[in-house]
Amino acid sequence: MQAAEMIEIWRGGRCESLHFGHAVVCDTDGVVEAWGAPNEVIFPRSSCKMVQALPLVESGAADAAGLSERQLALACASHSGAAMHVEAVGDWLKALDLGEEDLRCGCHMPRDKDENRRLTCSDTEPDQRHNNCSGKHAGFLTLNRHLGGGAEYVEVDHPVQIAAKAAFEEVTGETSPGFGIDGCSAPNHACSLQGLARGMARFADPGGDRRGQAMRRLVEAMRKYPEMVAGEGRACTTLMRAMRGRVAVKTGAEGVFVAILPEQGLGVAVKALDGATRASEAAITALLVHLGVLDAKDPVVSALLTGPVRNWRGIVTGEMRTAKGFPD
Amino acid sequence: MQAAEMIEIWRGGRCESLHFGHAVVCDTDGVVEAWGAPNEVIFPRSSCKMVQALPLVESGAADAAGLSERQLALACASHSGAAMHVEAVGDWLKALDLGEEDLRCGCHMPRDKDENRRLTCSDTEPDQRHNNCSGKHAGFLTLNRHLGGGAEYVEVDHPVQIAAKAAFEEVTGETSPGFGIDGCSAPNHACSLQGLARGMARFADPGGDRRGQAMRRLVEAMRKYPEMVAGEGRACTTLMRAMRGRVAVKTGAEGVFVAILPEQGLGVAVKALDGATRASEAAITALLVHLGVLDAKDPVVSALLTGPVRNWRGIVTGEMRTAKGFPD
Repeated sequence: MQAAEMIEIWRGGRCESLHFGHAVVCDTDGVVEAWGAPNEVIFPRSSCKMVQALPLVESGAADAAGLSERQLALACASHSGAAMHVEAVGDWLKALDLGEEDLRCGCHMPRDKDENRRLTCSDTEPDQRHNNCSGKHAGFLTLNRHLGGGAEYVEVDHPVQIAAKAAFEEVTGETSPGFGIDGCSAPNHACSLQGLARGMARFADPGGDRRGQAMRRLVEAMRKYPEMVAGEGRACTTLMRAMRGRVAVKTGAEGVFVAILPEQGLGVAVKALDGATRASEAAITALLVHLGVLDAKDPVVSALLTGPVRNWRGIVTGEMRTAKGFPD
Repeated sequence: MQAAEMIEIWRGGRCESLHFGHAVVCDTDGVVEAWGAPNEVIFPRSSCKMVQALPLVESGAADAAGLSERQLALACASHSGAAMHVEAVGDWLKALDLGEEDLRCGCHMPRDKDENRRLTCSDTEPDQRHNNCSGKHAGFLTLNRHLGGGAEYVEVDHPVQIAAKAAFEEVTGETSPGFGIDGCSAPNHACSLQGLARGMARFADPGGDRRGQAMRRLVEAMRKYPEMVAGEGRACTTLMRAMRGRVAVKTGAEGVFVAILPEQGLGVAVKALDGATRASEAAITALLVHLGVLDAKDPVVSALLTGPVRNWRGIVTGEMRTAKGFPD
């Protein structure tokens, strides 16, 4: 099966650009609805951070370190590097008697406008706390303290990554066919899009066992602290706020987006074939409206999905649309 | 015919994302080589700025205003808004007894890092000179002075835009099926990708008439002043420098790229179906190597096409490749 036509960009009454992709809705038994190829093997990238955080909670490491719900949300985040994110990661590391030099995520300028401006105008380089994955890495370091592993916690055979991989394979119900190195240097294991969506369904409808309890805590944390999962103006934060905490969503690089719908016991996973963020954001928005958890009239729907697209003088130049056959 | 698989993004030994697209090589008689659908109707966006600049030269307006070759290059540019671009547009407008308020392109923060930083850290808003299309608009204003039209020179029935449309239809050899409003508020007329490539072939192999002379002057200007057509680090500038002025190239929004090859009398046009710049830049690079005008070992080829892709710690995480069947 081929990728499906998913999101169209229109200008002057004509479809100017077109995004293909795959999308799957699952419950814990398997596929409920699908567009494109549900068995397509993908890298979930940052969309699976709540899976990578499971060992942190299940092992007892989170409780041993006294982590708050806000910190658990940050462990699942691709944050904007705003002052509040950077400070939270700094405080977290300090409580572990560690510093930003113990992180292995690398540095990049933060997406947050105010913090970016502060660094730029004071001639200050960003540090590793600014990396959008620094919360996940603080979680890795917390788990590592508990497991007693070495400093190079992003190596694929390190106890932290072995635990993350085991959780990933159990949750997706698949043996991962391989891994890539993510932007933040951690291994990212491949799975089918269906496996990712089924994993999200398990987070939506967790059991009463240790794993189920950990899943429930992580989803609760994401839903309660949407600003920690991404940041002001970002799709994850805006979508979760618009759905009033009923649903947890998470983006991943190269056009991935997932959603966890506890009320329906459903999980959703999207992959834009070309890796475009505008396509994955539009597609997950369309699917959330389709599944009845996002009001089609909410401003986030026009911001991320239907447009209008405006130019530098504010003139409407076009719109976005779901392609025929993809839900709108 | 469908879009062709064009550019792949690899990670961990697996194709993570895939860009479809269309590409055409033409001489003045028609299609020489094609991938995907050469008859696909597209918006050329900024890739056709040298066509939109033809009336400026042909009418005698450029000579009447004493425009330099550097200014003609700027008329064909999507510049970075660096100080040199902003000053050049400012001086140009001043010589016309006009100011930036006479432009109709709108304002956006410049892509140039130094100028962006200067504005950000001095709390200064960008003005319309910073718009990447301000050189084209200075050209429109120069033509408008010559034609004696009204101030609203971006309206589709304004003499400036009527002249631009006529040149566009003559050069592409097609009646445009419609137009959209571009990011800079000027009309952008649709054509087939083949029509755009054939137009570029006409610029590559111009006649001795008034039009041919204007084409030759504009191509010369672009080839001599690659830094005015885009800016430091940008694909157009870097590619033209790597080819030592033998070829003129121009990018357009939503994944368009064109090339003019005077030595072969060829024109090239690329459209990434999904509108991705990384795909159009990679595809035009592959085609320029394929056509023998760009050395496969030039650093620009790894920068724009083959990678490696590195993460925030400088670790190689993957690579880009041309898809099977697309030239490499």
